[in-house]
Amino acid sequence: MVVPEPGLPTRVRIHEVGARDGLQNEKTAVPTKVKAEFIRRLRTAGLTTIEATSFVHPKWVPQLADAEELFPQISDVDAELPVLVPNQRGLDRALALGARRIAVFASATESFAKANLNRTVDESLAVFEPVVRQAKDAGAHVRGYVSMCFGDPWEGEVPLPQVVRVCTALRDMGCDELSLGDTIGVATPGQVRALLTLLDEAGLPTAELGVHFHDTYGQALANTYAALQHGVTTVDASAGGLGGCPYAKSATGNLATEDLVWMLRGLGIETGVDLEALTATSVWMAGHLGRPSPSRTVRALGPTTQPDKDQ
Amino acid sequence: MVVPEPGLPTRVRIHEVGARDGLQNEKTAVPTKVKAEFIRRLRTAGLTTIEATSFVHPKWVPQLADAEELFPQISDVDAELPVLVPNQRGLDRALALGARRIAVFASATESFAKANLNRTVDESLAVFEPVVRQAKDAGAHVRGYVSMCFGDPWEGEVPLPQVVRVCTALRDMGCDELSLGDTIGVATPGQVRALLTLLDEAGLPTAELGVHFHDTYGQALANTYAALQHGVTTVDASAGGLGGCPYAKSATGNLATEDLVWMLRGLGIETGVDLEALTATSVWMAGHLGRPSPSRTVRALGPTTQPDKDQ
Repeated sequence: MVVPEPGLPTRVRIHEVGARDGLQNEKTAVPTKVKAEFIRRLRTAGLTTIEATSFVHPKWVPQLADAEELFPQISDVDAELPVLVPNQRGLDRALALGARRIAVFASATESFAKANLNRTVDESLAVFEPVVRQAKDAGAHVRGYVSMCFGDPWEGEVPLPQVVRVCTALRDMGCDELSLGDTIGVATPGQVRALLTLLDEAGLPTAELGVHFHDTYGQALANTYAALQHGVTTVDASAGGLGGCPYAKSATGNLATEDLVWMLRGLGIETGVDLEALTATSVWMAGHLGRPSPSRTVRALGPTTQPDKDQ
Repeated sequence: MVVPEPGLPTRVRIHEVGARDGLQNEKTAVPTKVKAEFIRRLRTAGLTTIEATSFVHPKWVPQLADAEELFPQISDVDAELPVLVPNQRGLDRALALGARRIAVFASATESFAKANLNRTVDESLAVFEPVVRQAKDAGAHVRGYVSMCFGDPWEGEVPLPQVVRVCTALRDMGCDELSLGDTIGVATPGQVRALLTLLDEAGLPTAELGVHFHDTYGQALANTYAALQHGVTTVDASAGGLGGCPYAKSATGNLATEDLVWMLRGLGIETGVDLEALTATSVWMAGHLGRPSPSRTVRALGPTTQPDKDQ
C-alpha cells in the first residue's frame, strides 16, 4: 500500500555502489565480464547512477585491479558511471578512459585517514584539491565521500563540527556532491538529523548531500528515513546488500538497495527501479559469489533457487 | 553518541516476545528448563515485560506445550509475564497458574482469521469477549494482538478502516492495550503513520497502543521510528530476532530487541535494558538453537564464539 508522507521528497536518486563498494570487499575478485554484466543488469533494473569501479593501486584493492579492462566494456551503458580515484594517478587513468564522474574519498577522522589513506585529514584534503580541480576542469562531476561521519572504530564518537569542517573543505574545493558515510554502521536517526542540521547551518545545500549508511547494527533504513524527512534526495545503496566493512566483525555491510526500494515504494517515492528485476539481479550475483544475499527483501522475494548456505 | 530528538518519548517499554513468539516458531521444542533460564536472563538484562508462553492446545503449538510446567518455574521472576490465551480453556489454565497478564490474538483480515483461528473476524471477536471479561474480572491486564494490520498474504493490502474496526472492538470489550502487528513485515513508515492517525481519530489513546513489526523486508526499525514519532511508547521485539512467520519464505522474523535497543539508546530513550547482557543472552540462546542470531547488533557485538553456521 502506498502512503505518501507530506514533507518527504517525491523522487529519490539511488547511487548504486554494489559494483564498487560491494565487490571491493569480496575475498576473491569477480571476473571482469561478470562485473560488466552486473552493471548492465543494474541499469536494466532501472538504476541510473551506478558506481562502476575504483582506479586505486591494485596492491590496495586487488578486487578492482581490472578497472582499465572493465570501463571500456561498459562505456555504452546509458547511465552515470562514477569511478573512485584516490589521487592524481587514478584521476589520469580514469579520465583517459573517458570517465565523466569521479569520486574522491576523505575521512572525517584522523585515525581512519591514517589507516585508509596513510595521511592526516588535512594532508589528504591537500592531495584531493588538485585532483578535484583537474576533474572539474575536464568537465567531470565530482562526488566527495566523507567516511566515519558518525563513529570511528578507534576514536569512538566523532564530533559533528569535525565532519562539517571536512564537508565544507570538500565543497569549497569544488565537489558537486558529498556522500555522508556511516562507515561502521553505528549511527542512529538523531545523529543523522543533527549532522544534516549542522550542514544546513554551514551553508551546504541538502540537495548536494547524499547519505551512505551501513547496516552493521540494523540502523541503515531508519537513518535513511530520518534523512528523507530532512529533505535528502540522494541515497547510496548496494544491490543485494553486497559489501561489508573490514572493521566490523559482521558480514553485514551496505544498506541493500532492495530494502531501500521497498521502503521508498511504500512511501510513494519514485526511484525508477523495478524491484523484481533488481532482486533477480542480486540473486544472479549471489549465484556467482556462492552465497545468498543478506538483503531481507531479496530473501523474501527471491526464488527458492537462491543459493542457500545460510540458515 | 546520544542525540535526543524533540517530540520523541523519553522512555519506551519493550514488550519482549522472544520466549513466546520466537520459540513457538522453532522447528523443535526447547527444553522447559532452557526456556525458564532464558526468561531469567532476559529479566537480568533489564527487560520488565517478558511474554512467557502460550496456553494454546499442544496440537497447534507443540513448541509451547509445556506452558503448565514452565509457568511455575518462573513465578518468582520480578517482571510482567504475559501469556497468550486463545479461548476460555486457555484462560482457565493460565489463571489457575496465577497469570496476571493475558493476551488474546485477533486478526484484521478474514483470511488470516480463518487460517489461524478457523473463524471469521466477528466470530473470533465473539469468542474473545467473555475471555477478556473474565480476565478483567479476575484482575488481569489484557493485551489484544491485532495481526495483519498492514498486509495479508492472501488479501494483499489491508484497508486501514478494517483494522480500526477490530482495534475498536477489542478496546470496547476491555483490552487494556493493543499490539498492532505487521505479521508479514510488508509495512512502510507511511502506513504506520496513517494507521496511528486513524486510531487517534477513532479515540484510541496512543498510550494504549504497542507496535509489533517484523523484519521480513528490513522495514521494522524504520517503522518503529515512525511510530515513536507518533508518540508510541510500547514496542514489541524479540531477543536476538528469534522467530519468523510461517507465511514468508525468509527466516527473518521479529524485530530484534538488540537492534531496537541500539536505536533507542542512540536517541537517548530509556529502556532499562543492558545491551551487552541482552546480547550475551541471545548468543547463549543461539547456542541452544544451534545457529547464529539474525540480529545485526548481536552479530556485530557478539563474541566470536557465537555459533557460526552462517556466512
